[in-house]
Order: sequence, then C-alpha cells, then structure tokens
Amino acid sequence: MTIAAKMAAAIQSSSWIRRMFEEGAALKAQLGPDQVYDFTLGNPDLEPPAAVKEALKAALQDARPGLHGYMPNAGLPATRQAVAAHLSEVHGLKFSPDDIIMTCGAAGALNVILKALLDPWDEVIILAPYFPEYLFYVENHGGVVRVVETDEKFLPEVSAIAAACNDHTRAVIINSPNNPTGQVYDAELLRSLGEMLADQSRRYGRPIYLINDEPYRRIVYDQVEVPSVFQAYPDAVVATSFSKDLSLPGERLGYAAVNPRAQARRELVAAMILANRILGYVNAPALMQRALVNLMGTAVDIAPYVQRRELFCQILAAGGYQFLKPRGAFYLFPRSPLADDVEFVQELKRENILAVPGRGFGRPGYFRLAFCVPENTIAAAAPGFARVMSRLAPGG
Amino acid sequence: MTIAAKMAAAIQSSSWIRRMFEEGAALKAQLGPDQVYDFTLGNPDLEPPAAVKEALKAALQDARPGLHGYMPNAGLPATRQAVAAHLSEVHGLKFSPDDIIMTCGAAGALNVILKALLDPWDEVIILAPYFPEYLFYVENHGGVVRVVETDEKFLPEVSAIAAACNDHTRAVIINSPNNPTGQVYDAELLRSLGEMLADQSRRYGRPIYLINDEPYRRIVYDQVEVPSVFQAYPDAVVATSFSKDLSLPGERLGYAAVNPRAQARRELVAAMILANRILGYVNAPALMQRALVNLMGTAVDIAPYVQRRELFCQILAAGGYQFLKPRGAFYLFPRSPLADDVEFVQELKRENILAVPGRGFGRPGYFRLAFCVPENTIAAAAPGFARVMSRLAPGG
Repeated sequence: MTIAAKMAAAIQSSSWIRRMFEEGAALKAQLGPDQVYDFTLGNPDLEPPAAVKEALKAALQDARPGLHGYMPNAGLPATRQAVAAHLSEVHGLKFSPDDIIMTCGAAGALNVILKALLDPWDEVIILAPYFPEYLFYVENHGGVVRVVETDEKFLPEVSAIAAACNDHTRAVIINSPNNPTGQVYDAELLRSLGEMLADQSRRYGRPIYLINDEPYRRIVYDQVEVPSVFQAYPDAVVATSFSKDLSLPGERLGYAAVNPRAQARRELVAAMILANRILGYVNAPALMQRALVNLMGTAVDIAPYVQRRELFCQILAAGGYQFLKPRGAFYLFPRSPLADDVEFVQELKRENILAVPGRGFGRPGYFRLAFCVPENTIAAAAPGFARVMSRLAPGG
Repeated sequence: MTIAAKMAAAIQSSSWIRRMFEEGAALKAQLGPDQVYDFTLGNPDLEPPAAVKEALKAALQDARPGLHGYMPNAGLPATRQAVAAHLSEVHGLKFSPDDIIMTCGAAGALNVILKALLDPWDEVIILAPYFPEYLFYVENHGGVVRVVETDEKFLPEVSAIAAACNDHTRAVIINSPNNPTGQVYDAELLRSLGEMLADQSRRYGRPIYLINDEPYRRIVYDQVEVPSVFQAYPDAVVATSFSKDLSLPGERLGYAAVNPRAQARRELVAAMILANRILGYVNAPALMQRALVNLMGTAVDIAPYVQRRELFCQILAAGGYQFLKPRGAFYLFPRSPLADDVEFVQELKRENILAVPGRGFGRPGYFRLAFCVPENTIAAAAPGFARVMSRLAPGG
C-alpha cells in the first residue's frame, strides 16, 4: 500500500454526504442540473452581505506595509479586539483579545482546541446525531470518540453524558444550533450540563471542557435565543466561523474563544496558539481578518432561510413525513419511512431527490435535507416526496 | 494538568526562533526598536508585487455568485489549472490539475502530504540543520523523525540517507533552497538521491517519497538554478507557498504537487485531498485562489535581497566569521566562534544583535541570521559583529 492504512480506511468510510454529492453529480450530468433536487450539502447559497465586499475593498486600500504579512499565530490584535468586544456584548462577560484565537474556520478552531487538550487515548464525548467530521477531528490528535445518544427530540440526557465520563474524558462537544437536526439547546439544559461537568471535573481532578461548535448561532427561527455556553459553565470553549452568518465558507475564517472564567485559561490559550502554528494553519488569512474588524455586527439576511423552512415543512407535513421543525441552522432531519435509511434515500433518488441517510450522522432511521437551496428547488421536489411516501404506504 | 502533556512539552521545547523573538521584543521595548538589530525571523519584509493588489481588486469585481463559497477540497479548478501549466513549464513534464492540491501555505501542504502517508511509528528522514517545524509536522500524524546530518557544506551524503532507511521509512524531506543554510542542491545530487530512493523503495516493497519543501525556489542568487525534483525521481512531491515569492505569508496560500510520473499518483492525491478536509483546512482561501490565477508568472523583485546578502557577507567576512555564501533563500548560517552557540548568541545580544542559535535547527555550533530586513539594519550591526569577535579573540 502506498498511502497510510489509516487514510485508506478513512477514504473507504468517507462521509455519506460526499458520497451522495458524487452520486448526485452523476445524476445531474445525466438529466441536467435543474432536473435534480439536491438537498445534500450544507453549503450556504446566499451571497455575503454587501458590507463584506466593501470591507475587503477598504482593507485593500490600506497602503501601510505588511497588509499580507506574517502576524502573531493568534491573529491580528485589532481583529481579536473586535471579536472580544462582540462576545462581551453577546455573552454578558468581559472578554479580552487574549481569550480569542483567529482560526481557519470552525474546523480549524476545533482542531486547535482538540490538539491543545488531547494526549493519545484521551476521550471526547459527542452526541448522536453528530456532524461526522468530529470523528476525524478527534482521531487526528490520537483521541477516542465516545458517542452518547440523544432523545427523540435530539436533546441530550445529562445523566447519559455523566455516565460516559471517566478519567480519560477531556471534553464534550456540543453543536447548538445543531447540524443535522436544527435543534437548539435551552439555557436550563446548558446549565444542568455545566453543573454535571463541574461535578465530573472535581471527581476526576481536572477540567472536562464543554466545547460548543456554534457557526449557526445567528441562524435561528421564531425568536429562538441561543443561550451562552460561557454563562452556563466556566470551562467552556466556543468554536465558530463566518462561513454561515457572512456566507464566506471558502475563505476559512473563524475563531476559538475561551471563557474568561476558565480555570486554566492562560495555559489553554497558550497551547491553542502553539497548536495553530504547529498544525500548519499558522494564522487565519490576513486580508479577511482585516476586513472582519468592520463586520462583527453584520450578518446575512436569513429571510430566505425562513421562507424555505416554512415551505419545506409544509411539503413534508403534507407528504406524511415525521419531523421536528428546526429551531436553527438550515437542515431538516425527518424520520425515514423505511427502517433502512439508505434504502429510503435510494427511493428518493428515483424521484431525483438527493438526501443524506441518517447513519452518516450516527443516527440510522432518519435522513437529512439541507434547505440552503433556492425555494423553487424545494417546491419542485414536492410531488416526488409525496410519490415516494404513497409508494411505501401499505397498499401503496 | 489542564492541557495535553504532549502540548505542555511542546511549549517547553518550542522553537528557539520564537524564544529569541520574544527576548528581542523585550529588548526593543527597553531600547527602542531602531536600537536593536533583529535577524531572527524569516518574515519577508518586501511588499507584494503591485500585480497582487490588482489581481485581488479584479477578483472582487467578479459579480458572479459564489466568489467566497465552498469549493472542492483540492481547490478551484481554474487555479489548479494555472499551477499545472506553470509547473509543466518549469519542470518540463506534463502536469494536470489533478496533480495539484491548493493548501494553507507550505505548512498546510506538508501536513497534508504527511497525513496521507503516515501511520503511527512510520518514519520520515530529515536533514540537519533543518527547519524545526518539521519535527512537529511529522509528530502531528504519529510519525517518527529520523535525523541525518549533512556535511560541512550542508549537503547530504546519499549513503548516510540510505543507511537511515528501513521498512518504516515513508518519506525524506529536503528543503532546497534551504532554510537555515541558503544551500541549493544541484541536479547531480538530486539524481543520485533519486536513484538511491528507487533502490530502497524496491528493497522495502513500497515507495519512499522524496518531498521537497521549496518555497524559496524563486529566491536564488548568482544565476543558481534550482533543479527539478520531479525530473530526478518519480515518487517526488513538492510543497510550496506564495509566502516568499509573492510576499504573502499572512494569506496562507500554497500547494502540494505530485509528480505526474509517481507510481500511485491517483491514490496519493485522493488521500491528500481527504487530508486537506479532515485536518480542518478544508480548502485554501477562496479569494486568494482566484487572484492567483493571474499571478503565476509574477514574483517579488529580489534585488533588495541580493544587495543585503552582499553587504552582510562583507560585514561577516570583515569581522572574521566563517560562513558559506548562501545560494538561495534569505539566511546566513555562520559558524559560531564559541563552541556553545547559545552562549555566542547571548554575546551578540550584548551588542543588541538578535540571532538564532544553531541548535534550534539541530546543528549546534552555528547561528542563523535572516537578512529579510532593511539594508541599514544590517549596516548598523557591523560594528557590533566586529566587537563581539574581537572580544572573543585570544587576547581580545
């Protein structure tokens, strides 16, 4: 074998999302792209707010030297200051630039956090259904994933997480607002999660970190509030990006923020800064960091997501599908009418509808639909969703 | 302990370059920055060519949707096409876009290559003196570094590398033009290195890759030619960036290129693309990739480096220092007049001159001077270099 055995295995098990994307590409090549209803990729299709282009143009006007130069591995001081000011306002806690590390997207932030925390065989708890990249991110640093199931509403049971803690547990990753379910955890849940982790940390003699991966924080519906993980628990860390709320996924801009009340905040931040360097990220892209200083208050107008969500929920309800209306993000995670979600997704494909089976997220028996696609794609898929269901119905 | 034990150790052993940088910052705060002659950081101080700003402005004018959107993990097809065309010309081999993966700088490229190749305990040969980040990059993926010494001229002995090969050896990393020595390997050396690796690969039944980290390819002096590692050996991979030749180190733009003649090229490229995703880089920054399409023929004017090199060599020669005139990159790596290079660097610091001890690069008894600083800084340091030497001379 030429490549690493580990990588050969990873390629084999590589995500269902990509696999469906590739099958979809083949179908589109065959039928024409407008004949295929592709709900597989969580790729925001809204354009960035106009302010993004203006901020980039303004940054390019800056004639001072070093616009594209090296910088501290944590990022530009002015950018970290802007993020700290924003977080102070959102979370009602006083953040300093020293609590912030600018990263290569939320993926970079998660890897920097995990590299700082994990020795080989250390454990990280994740909640199913989960964003499948977490499996890779933990494994990158020699860690071991421990999966805890959530309930029918995709909410974690605090006692189940407590039962999964042991003296190897270094962190729990949550993702609220959630991909793939659209669930958002409320303040009471976060508070009891924080209390339990404080207990477990005392029990095992070192902090178990609560990491919220929250790139969908600003994409929520029906006045849902996303409570602060920092308020709920001192040893909390946030990983996030501007991929969704500024629609900049290709620019790889995000950050990790450590709770100013974390017990070992300085030690953790120092390790994360070194991790940013030695993992080869070095720093988040310079020009984007400069533009961001003037963009912290800006976000895409989520009105199109609101409308698509309504429409998609109507279509699925009319078709007889069982699902929870998402409270955030841009995904639906309905129950599969067939026990085998892969088989069901193949049924959808016969109607030129592309979805991802729930087992790709560690929850068989469901399927994911991403609604970051034009409304008319959703509308056009309605008859297909209905036909599949009636084919599968008893006597159908 | 809060953070990983591995990271705590890494912070302790963290590079001499940074340590000297920090001591220098303290000295500058005390004396004023223009009273300190700082030669510690390989941070290109030349501004990017004017064409870079023009290309970025033009990219921002593009009104088509998706300017900042997700893309294939390997990068934008147009950018990979431009890189492939450039490499075909430089190396006299036919590259296709499928041989290229756009990365987060050369650091990202090296990590992507190593992730694709290394299972735990696999070995990578590096040559001392070495760029110290290689130690981290190999360790990131569970690999083990095997260091082979180079000779007095910092050239490798092929037989010594052969003697270090075993059935765990997956790759040899070279860095020509070299940091910290300024050495450039000639075609004959690469050819014999390639022959030896072909033999060793046959012996152990799988390819041992030759990786050239070559961000300084366009920064060479006295008409030195940088021969093609692809011409020398089929199983060759290049990692590089635009940090030096376009002076864009903060933008994190680089690529990995696999020899079109590599035995298992498709398998390797597929693993590298997956590595780019799962290491959390996802893709190289989008806007910079778009700008790059029109910049492949562009590079900074290295005339200032040429002049600084001449001046610095004159000053060191006049001071009685022993050194090789660098053939490329922007570093000098003179012999330390004291056996203990750390002690010698402290002597330099008494003259407000900052340098990095050779042991930071795995070669005690030497020190590194980066000459990517204004010419007058080099000129102003001349008396200090002379005084240190006369203090240390017998009877001085």
